[in-house]
This record gives sequence, structure tokens and C-alpha cells, in this order.
Amino acid sequence: MPRSHTYRLRVEFGDCDPAQIVFYPNFFKWMDIAALHFFNACGIESWRQTKADWGIIGAPLVGASARFVNSATYPEAIEVDTTIVEISGKAFILKHVIRRGDTVLAEGEEKRIFAIEDPADPKRIKAVAIPESLLAQWQ
Amino acid sequence: MPRSHTYRLRVEFGDCDPAQIVFYPNFFKWMDIAALHFFNACGIESWRQTKADWGIIGAPLVGASARFVNSATYPEAIEVDTTIVEISGKAFILKHVIRRGDTVLAEGEEKRIFAIEDPADPKRIKAVAIPESLLAQWQ
Amino acid sequence: MPRSHTYRLRVEFGDCDPAQIVFYPNFFKWMDIAALHFFNACGIESWRQTKADWGIIGAPLVGASARFVNSATYPEAIEVDTTIVEISGKAFILKHVIRRGDTVLAEGEEKRIFAIEDPADPKRIKAVAIPESLLAQWQ
Amino acid sequence: MPRSHTYRLRVEFGDCDPAQIVFYPNFFKWMDIAALHFFNACGIESWRQTKADWGIIGAPLVGASARFVNSATYPEAIEVDTTIVEISGKAFILKHVIRRGDTVLAEGEEKRIFAIEDPADPKRIKAVAIPESLLAQWQ
Repeated sequence: MPRSHTYRLRVEFGDCDPAQIVFYPNFFKWMDIAALHFFNACGIESWRQTKADWGIIGAPLVGASARFVNSATYPEAIEVDTTIVEISGKAFILKHVIRRGDTVLAEGEEKRIFAIEDPADPKRIKAVAIPESLLAQWQ
Repeated sequence: MPRSHTYRLRVEFGDCDPAQIVFYPNFFKWMDIAALHFFNACGIESWRQTKADWGIIGAPLVGASARFVNSATYPEAIEVDTTIVEISGKAFILKHVIRRGDTVLAEGEEKRIFAIEDPADPKRIKAVAIPESLLAQWQ
Repeated sequence: MPRSHTYRLRVEFGDCDPAQIVFYPNFFKWMDIAALHFFNACGIESWRQTKADWGIIGAPLVGASARFVNSATYPEAIEVDTTIVEISGKAFILKHVIRRGDTVLAEGEEKRIFAIEDPADPKRIKAVAIPESLLAQWQ
Repeated sequence: MPRSHTYRLRVEFGDCDPAQIVFYPNFFKWMDIAALHFFNACGIESWRQTKADWGIIGAPLVGASARFVNSATYPEAIEVDTTIVEISGKAFILKHVIRRGDTVLAEGEEKRIFAIEDPADPKRIKAVAIPESLLAQWQ
């Protein structure tokens, strides 16, 4: 059962800024994509599907951080290795290591929860327990 | 002399994701914009200008983090308050508080350095001392 | 009643690409924002509101085009002038002139319709007539 | 020699907007990526390389347009077929057909030129003739 996943991408021209290197918020965009690919590998197809199955509308962020070690530019091929490193009640932390071959570019963490619509107010959300089928894979 | 600055923006439709709320990497994009507006308020016009004046090509990130407290959606007006909270050698930390009125949406930090092109390799960069004119305002 | 609207923005560092100029898809992003600001000026607050009022979930694109005349870079202030230039059945065309002062940077057109969820298939959409309150302003 | 190229991508969560479908400027972003992949297939590695070889700093847009036929959402796999459909002096038109399997989602065109820095003003650019090695493949 997958507890880690690697997402591969190519840095594109439009991902880079006037300093010729990746515009840093894109590293968080790639961590978000890597997180969803990781969830996919755990059997979650889309938030539309989790909403139908469990009422879960997504896995919103509680926090995110990254340490930038080396810069990257187009058209380099890079990889994001994603693992679960902590589970604490309803929250869990995904660690992402972003590499170009053996060179680490950045290391990041995303703290997330699974959320449903708040029954008391459809414009707000509420954290729910991590689904058993995921916990079984993650622990 | 400015040691804090507020950047005002409107959340737009395209900033939001299928969960109807701001796609989280956009908070880092707004922190990056707020940082440059802060530098502007300190007398830096653009990295083109600093390159001409000091050889400085930008203020790349060493690290970035955010804690997400409340979600936001379009067409809400939000504000980013930016201050210098730490100076340590060549590195410095900008703190950003992202608010909708009095409601804090997110708090983030960016650790940055000022960089020049590495004389030994034009494809790499090198940290330099914080310019005196900025230090005088920040300390 | 508003039949034209001007959206003002500042070109930011992250809007520009390694050629130091605005990454061209951002011109379409700004036309999309200008379109929504135009709708706002016509009394539409958000697609959440139109959905509640009329079932209308948005104004999806049938087509979009732009002609690029002059480049732009950060931190320039630019303006987008938006008008309705054609109404044809359920479709309408917004024209956007993107200027930096008197210098035209780009001219674009967006052909849009108003859409509701298809009653026959909630995953698809269906064009509906332009609301009377808008037609009255636009004709 | 390649006169057409197919760029494959997966629509991601963050590419979609609150209407649950691809935010339309992303179609232009994908056409830009597809154009560079097409150039790559024609032997151009990066604009850094063309600058070193020929002084060419990129292939800026003169115009861009798209017709949107069907919507797309995550996590769908889509393809962009790119071909040269017109050469006229220094300008050329790339046609992009964006498909999900056999279903056409959008058809777009980009009119581009190759540019060097203007010797008279380094902040401006100047169109140059299409390099012979590309013309030989395209005609």
C-alpha cells in the first residue's frame, strides 16, 4: 500500500520569473499537486468522489512551509517525493522533498485536515476524522 | 522611515479553487507581492534598479511558511501587513499578517537574502550584505 | 448605468517571465478579472449571488482573443477598459483595451454566455438568456 | 523532422476555478508550454541557448486566440497537438488543438515572431528572420 509517491514534472518557461528561476510560490503549487497525486495513489480519485462517498470536500491546509536549498529553471526535470510523516488526531503532515536528480531543491511540509461542509453553515467547513481506509495505509 | 507596509488586494474568481476558497499557493504569491511593495516603500524601485545600483538581482527566498486560520473567497477585500521581524547576518525575516478587516486569515514568514550573480558562475547566485540604506531603516 | 468600466492594476514581479515582460496568459487573466469587475459595476456581486437569484453559475467563455502591441513589465501601472461591443442571442462580446497611460499594450475580446447547470446532467452546463436587468443596461 | 508535436498533461485541482472547470487563461498557459515543447522538438533547447547561438531571446506573441468547445476538469488527462499552419515573413502561426481523447476541448492559435534585444535600446525587442534551420523543418 502506498505511503510514499513521486510526482514528476518539467519546469516550464512560465514557471520562472525575471530572475530566470522558479517563482517560489510554484513550489507550493507543486506540493499541492504532489499531495493530490499521493492521495490518488491511496485510492482517492477526486474530491468530487470523496464528497459523494464520505461528504469530504477536500483536505484544506492548516499550515505549509518550505526551505529552499537550490534554485531551478526551465526546462529541468524535477521530482517531488511525498510521504506522511505525522498523524495527530484529525491533522496529518505531508513531507515533500523536491529534487533534480540527486540535488535537493526544496523540502516542504503541508499540515492538512479532511473537511466536510459545516452542517450549521454551508459557507464554512469542519474537520472530520481521517477515513479508516487511509489510516490503515498511513500507520 | 517605513518599517511596515500594508498591501491591499481584492480576491478574484480566478484566485479561488473548486472548493470555492483561495487556492493556498496564492497566499504565498501575495506575500511575495507584499514583500516587493514593502521594499518599494523602503526606496527600492525594482530589481532592475538595484542591479544597476548595487549589482543586487533580487531577494531570493531561503524559506517560507504560513499558518492558515480562516479561509477567504472572492470578491473579498483583504490586506497584508508586512514588517521586518528579524535580521541575522545577511538574512532577514519578513512577517506578513493577512487580514480581512479584523479577521486574520493567515500569518506567514519569508526568510530572504539579497543576491548578486556569482562572479565565478553567472548561472549561480551569491548572498551579499544587506545594503546600509535598508539596514538604517530596519534596525 | 455602466456600459464601460476601467480596472486598474499594477504589474507584479511574479507576473513577468524570464524575458522580463508580462507572461502573456496573464493578459487573459486580467481580462477575466476586468470582466467580473464590469459585471460587478452592472449590479452582479458574485456568481454565488447569481446562482441564488437566477440559477446562473457564471459566464463561461465561448472564445477569447488578443492582439499584443506593446510589452509591459513590473512595477508598471496599467488599466483595462471594458465595454460590451456585441450582443447576439444568448452570447455577448466584451472588448478589453489594456493601456499603460496612453500606450495601448493589448486589445482583446471575450465571447461569453451566461450558464446554468444542465437539469439533465449536473456535470454539464446550459446557456440561458441574458438577464433583462443586464440587457437593459447593455443595449 | 517534427512539424507537429503532442504535449500531454493532467488537469490539476489548482487549474480549476469555483465553477469546477479549468480557469480559461490556463488554456493559453498550456498553449505556451506546448509551443515551447514544439520548439524543443525542432531542436531548440531553451531561450538561453538561442540567445547564445543567435541572439534570439524568445518568441513573443503578436496575437493569440482560442475557441472553447467543451469544458475540462481535474484529474482528466488532456493532449495539445501543435502544428505550424502559416509562415508570413518574420511571423508564424502555431495551431493548437486541445483534446481529451477524441473530444476537442479548445482550438487556439498563437501568432509569434522571433526576437532579439533592440541594439538601439536594450529594454526593447526587435523581430528577426526565422532561423534557417527551423524554416527548413517548417516549410
